[in-house]
Amino acid sequence: MGLNSFQTSGNSPGDANRCHVGILGMGTVGTAVARRLTGSDPIPHLQLTHICDRRARDKQARQPDAVARLTWTDRFDDLLASDIDIIIETIPGSEPAVDYVRAALLAGKSVVTSNKSVIAHHGEKLLALAERQGRQLRFEGAVGGAMPIVRALGDGLAGDHVLKLQAILNGTSNVVLSRMEATGCSLDEAIAEACASGFAESDPSEDLDGVDAAAKLAILCGLAFGVRVAPAAIDTRTTSRIAPTAFAKAKLRGGTIRQIAHAAFDRAQRRLEAWVAPTFVPSGTLFSTIHGPMNAAIISCAYAGDLMLSGQGAGGDASAVAIIADVLAIARDRAAIVPAPVLTPVKDLQGLSDSSIAEAV
Amino acid sequence: MGLNSFQTSGNSPGDANRCHVGILGMGTVGTAVARRLTGSDPIPHLQLTHICDRRARDKQARQPDAVARLTWTDRFDDLLASDIDIIIETIPGSEPAVDYVRAALLAGKSVVTSNKSVIAHHGEKLLALAERQGRQLRFEGAVGGAMPIVRALGDGLAGDHVLKLQAILNGTSNVVLSRMEATGCSLDEAIAEACASGFAESDPSEDLDGVDAAAKLAILCGLAFGVRVAPAAIDTRTTSRIAPTAFAKAKLRGGTIRQIAHAAFDRAQRRLEAWVAPTFVPSGTLFSTIHGPMNAAIISCAYAGDLMLSGQGAGGDASAVAIIADVLAIARDRAAIVPAPVLTPVKDLQGLSDSSIAEAV
Repeated sequence: MGLNSFQTSGNSPGDANRCHVGILGMGTVGTAVARRLTGSDPIPHLQLTHICDRRARDKQARQPDAVARLTWTDRFDDLLASDIDIIIETIPGSEPAVDYVRAALLAGKSVVTSNKSVIAHHGEKLLALAERQGRQLRFEGAVGGAMPIVRALGDGLAGDHVLKLQAILNGTSNVVLSRMEATGCSLDEAIAEACASGFAESDPSEDLDGVDAAAKLAILCGLAFGVRVAPAAIDTRTTSRIAPTAFAKAKLRGGTIRQIAHAAFDRAQRRLEAWVAPTFVPSGTLFSTIHGPMNAAIISCAYAGDLMLSGQGAGGDASAVAIIADVLAIARDRAAIVPAPVLTPVKDLQGLSDSSIAEAV
Repeated sequence: MGLNSFQTSGNSPGDANRCHVGILGMGTVGTAVARRLTGSDPIPHLQLTHICDRRARDKQARQPDAVARLTWTDRFDDLLASDIDIIIETIPGSEPAVDYVRAALLAGKSVVTSNKSVIAHHGEKLLALAERQGRQLRFEGAVGGAMPIVRALGDGLAGDHVLKLQAILNGTSNVVLSRMEATGCSLDEAIAEACASGFAESDPSEDLDGVDAAAKLAILCGLAFGVRVAPAAIDTRTTSRIAPTAFAKAKLRGGTIRQIAHAAFDRAQRRLEAWVAPTFVPSGTLFSTIHGPMNAAIISCAYAGDLMLSGQGAGGDASAVAIIADVLAIARDRAAIVPAPVLTPVKDLQGLSDSSIAEAV
């Protein structure tokens, strides 16, 4: 099969030009992708053939026919040995996922991941490995859910300089805070409701404390500024101590409260200011209009001015759309060699500054 | 030079792997691109070598040195005969621009255009020609200014189905309407101010009447729904009869007025509802927060829910960022063959319906 043959295969239908896909991890996101790829409305040119999960046998039994009859395995080596072109990695946490992604690239597979920890901690090395292997590693689903912020920063703004990023990157916190805003309830009540609606886990501390958003912000700092920053080095203030009275005060000031991830980079000084904190947002601005499990971002650029994005930040279907977009981008041009980013350390990493702390609540 | 050699040239610097670029048309947008590509902050791997303009001699004399010393010509054939890889087309109107774009593709050049008329009227045939020629035609700058809506619809949502598009696509109308909202002035006063600030031409009738937005909406309907619709077939209501009292009434209703381009597609019935009209937008929603020369869009999808974008909709620098992103996408993978979209006609094209007319003002 020749270079770019997928792209020119419009007149030669048949399986030979299909891109074979496997899924590693059948949680919420993996399941949503599997159902989308096997549903009544399939994606042309993509064929899901393999599913790998630790509890393959249990989970296979609970799937609809079209998913259950695929090849299931609990051994990752079976995916590596198969004729799959692209592995979709959706298991939680950085370990052992990073080993799987590395092994997949070494075996000549391209990888699409929604795993923020893997990219935040190991993305630079893995992307370099992908380039050396002539394969691709894409991760739109790792940040921002359905909001195409990875594409916007990596492609759409490639000719600009990003000066500042402000974003709502954690859907769970936004569900909790916008619930408190709407009903005047306590944080615990809002969490209980978010759990009941499937928008929070029973222990949402990584969401509320800013750990989740900090990992995503670290990824965005790499894309936007070309800098290497460890998620743990980013200053975080917890959202878990926000009381209903804070919303009353914010309302008097003419706004509300959201968990904001903030990063500003001074290229001349190589100084990065990065933090995640519950923050006052004025009415009539983008963030004040973001309710429920949504993500949003304002990207301030040297030439293009402010660019704003928002979209569903949680839920399997939203992540599945981001993942499938990445799979299609690889399938369209399997021979493309994507140059790995060259990240450099910052000279000076600042947290919440005196000037910005006034906005934190 | 091998396939994808640009992409793997990181370790072999030098001009051999640079992508040579020429600009056709030195208006606001062409000039912004030229200055960006020759400024103190150049884009790696891109080299602007040629500029073609009807009034080349006059304009060359008024440029900064770095632009003036490039090869200037008033003959398009000089661009075709050069070693340029990519031609950036920024001349206004569909004729003769379409002939230039066609000739460029036939001569083996890739083309990046910010010309909405060319794409709205001739995009389908030109994209097919580009595919046959093994070259690329990209047009992020033709719709939405710096807001990356062409990418979002074409790539980011490739795995979803767009159900509905609503957007502010005309920066001039938005400047005029948001000025009337802020100051209570008349439409004529707002137009005069927009002219003085460079945000409106002396005759902004194509902007206010919806002709500009309809051409852009026709392009988006092709990307979002895969349908072929002539810009002139889209129902438009003029914004030029909006009085200050309309804003007072909208405020009482809890909102304001914006020129909205709307399209909704029923895939089963192949029924498209498409219109451009001044429309009531409730406070607290995205469009009510869009002031000045901004564009914005809400894309409603079957799987990903609502995706929102906004960014600068007018001005040379914003368009230049969109154009340079396209040029870089081509430069990164000059051998890629992008499959041309297959557009089909709609069965039933509706304008403002009884239900939506209530929102038009």
